[in-house]
Amino acid sequence: MKKFRELETLYARFEQAAKEMFGYPICQLFNYSKLFRFLKFHINNLGDPFSEAWHYRINTLKIEKKMIDYFAKLFHAPKNTYWGYVTTGGTEGNLYGLYVARELYPEGVVFYSDQTHYSVPKNLRLLKMPGVVIPSLPNGEIDYQHLKKKLASRKQVPIIFANIGTTMKGAVDNVRRIQEILKELNIKKSYIHCDAAFFGLTLPFLPKLDSQAFDFSIGVDSLVISGHKMIGTPIPCGVILTQKSHMTGIGSRIEYVGAKDNTIGGSRSGLFSLFLWYEFYCCKKGKLAGQVRDCIKRADYAIKKFSQAGIHAWRGPNSFIVVFPRPSMKMVKKWQLAIQGPTSHLITLPHVYRKTIDRFVKEIAQDLEK
Amino acid sequence: MKKFRELETLYARFEQAAKEMFGYPICQLFNYSKLFRFLKFHINNLGDPFSEAWHYRINTLKIEKKMIDYFAKLFHAPKNTYWGYVTTGGTEGNLYGLYVARELYPEGVVFYSDQTHYSVPKNLRLLKMPGVVIPSLPNGEIDYQHLKKKLASRKQVPIIFANIGTTMKGAVDNVRRIQEILKELNIKKSYIHCDAAFFGLTLPFLPKLDSQAFDFSIGVDSLVISGHKMIGTPIPCGVILTQKSHMTGIGSRIEYVGAKDNTIGGSRSGLFSLFLWYEFYCCKKGKLAGQVRDCIKRADYAIKKFSQAGIHAWRGPNSFIVVFPRPSMKMVKKWQLAIQGPTSHLITLPHVYRKTIDRFVKEIAQDLEK
Repeated sequence: MKKFRELETLYARFEQAAKEMFGYPICQLFNYSKLFRFLKFHINNLGDPFSEAWHYRINTLKIEKKMIDYFAKLFHAPKNTYWGYVTTGGTEGNLYGLYVARELYPEGVVFYSDQTHYSVPKNLRLLKMPGVVIPSLPNGEIDYQHLKKKLASRKQVPIIFANIGTTMKGAVDNVRRIQEILKELNIKKSYIHCDAAFFGLTLPFLPKLDSQAFDFSIGVDSLVISGHKMIGTPIPCGVILTQKSHMTGIGSRIEYVGAKDNTIGGSRSGLFSLFLWYEFYCCKKGKLAGQVRDCIKRADYAIKKFSQAGIHAWRGPNSFIVVFPRPSMKMVKKWQLAIQGPTSHLITLPHVYRKTIDRFVKEIAQDLEK
Repeated sequence: MKKFRELETLYARFEQAAKEMFGYPICQLFNYSKLFRFLKFHINNLGDPFSEAWHYRINTLKIEKKMIDYFAKLFHAPKNTYWGYVTTGGTEGNLYGLYVARELYPEGVVFYSDQTHYSVPKNLRLLKMPGVVIPSLPNGEIDYQHLKKKLASRKQVPIIFANIGTTMKGAVDNVRRIQEILKELNIKKSYIHCDAAFFGLTLPFLPKLDSQAFDFSIGVDSLVISGHKMIGTPIPCGVILTQKSHMTGIGSRIEYVGAKDNTIGGSRSGLFSLFLWYEFYCCKKGKLAGQVRDCIKRADYAIKKFSQAGIHAWRGPNSFIVVFPRPSMKMVKKWQLAIQGPTSHLITLPHVYRKTIDRFVKEIAQDLEK
């Protein structure tokens, strides 16, 4: 049947493309085949994983709650002080974090660097929240001096959208330093949301740097991680975690309008929680740390190879996003690279092998010579 | 291994629960096993399916575009006059439709009946849009007289959120009648969004009723359907369709803030489009019509069985949501029923067989006698 042949072609195309996917933070190495048969069901976690009053029984709400507890622990949230749920990806999580901030501080203004993911301005528009874009330092971090100036000039409650691993350069905004700035300016009320979509599942397994602290132990208000970036999942998913105390307003007010839960969606897939649970409890428990360290090693390998080819490439501390000069569009398309101005990058995720790095650097070097 | 035994238990539990899922509009009868192997990949359709400029190659954007075209045709949108994308479910679609309306009419007010899905008030809060709740008629349709009164008393542009199949009673708001009311009141500017999450894939295959017209042929502005409701998909998904001319503002303004696409999310699963394509092109093409008619027959069968047991049950025209008196919580939990005040319902989706209906009616009758 012709239709099924189309599926064959698609599969073969994807198999090739997955090997040459170097530019996006989407891990291509995962194996959920033991869960395939669960696609016989429509697993739906509609509602709040912290409630137990839902009637649709084909759900993984208990597993979801377990995963929220797991991540809350990883990010040092004390017991019973957090709330969260499994989302359809980083964007929904960031939308949710900003929404929580807006409900707490309806007159708040969002400060974020020009390196912030492109979905954030979209979210701000959706939420009708004013935003102030702050320039970034050459390494990709927010320009702290500029931020301080802008914070000083505004009277509204600042909502800081901090990048824990920027898309392009893998820079980590220094949250402690931002907190110091807020203190210096005598700003009493503020909200800090951390977009740790990618690095939220790498930094906890790498040498701790004070400049990269971002979790509940230093008092952030909400944070987001992605499932499909570091660990890899077939379908985009993520987790939003927020301080439980922030949810009182949202919960009660939503009850008033007749809604029965705190999440953004109605139906929510219960498969995502099953993926995460499977990876963390059945497979990667303990393995993730080694995997992350190996990614760093392969990043250094790529930098060395680039250097041998006479090309300057670099990475930030604890980052395996290797930044190098932007090649031609032919290369961008072939290797599925992200580009921004004069730069591009390679991310040495688990599926990016040394052998392919060799081939990649060779091709890029030839391309840049032209 | 204990963990894998947990998976066995879960699977067995779901298998039983799927047979006894009578209350939610989520079809349990589908077979995507030919697509399971695609879960080896992370298929991501990030961006706009109508653009072709995306670099991540493991996508099904072309298939997505094909499905949008398919549904646009089903809903009588003339060629090149529509825009849309595959969403994570009805809620995202409804959120998007309301967002489009808000960007067109920033001062608009949303009118919706008290039978509207609970996610809509949540969406309105997120979007900071004012809403007016209109009471409903006993059959579940919006109270047109009340709507007219409320419309007359407001000067802002009305955004009508019409239900094409209410959650509880399967009622279809009469869009033509609403259009007449707008005309009678001499309201020149308005926006009509249709939530056809469930009935969007049933009504096109049933006898046409003027009172149930809801698509682009009568000039609606946007509409939403769900993938997991009538046809059944393992993961919630849906489609938003809107008039292309409404998108000009959103597109350009988003470009201004630096964002590169029109969708709400960043990463979007490309698997959902593959599911829809597989169902419509490989499997159910032409079969859906017969399946929908059979659902109606089984609804009438259930009503007859209820009647024989001395219980009054009913359904609306072209609806196979069978409304009956609310039973005990034991029954609600066992059969996964939705409840609202004194009523409950049974939805005779393809997985609800006559034999199980017999057992169900018997149990409900015994329960209501108590």
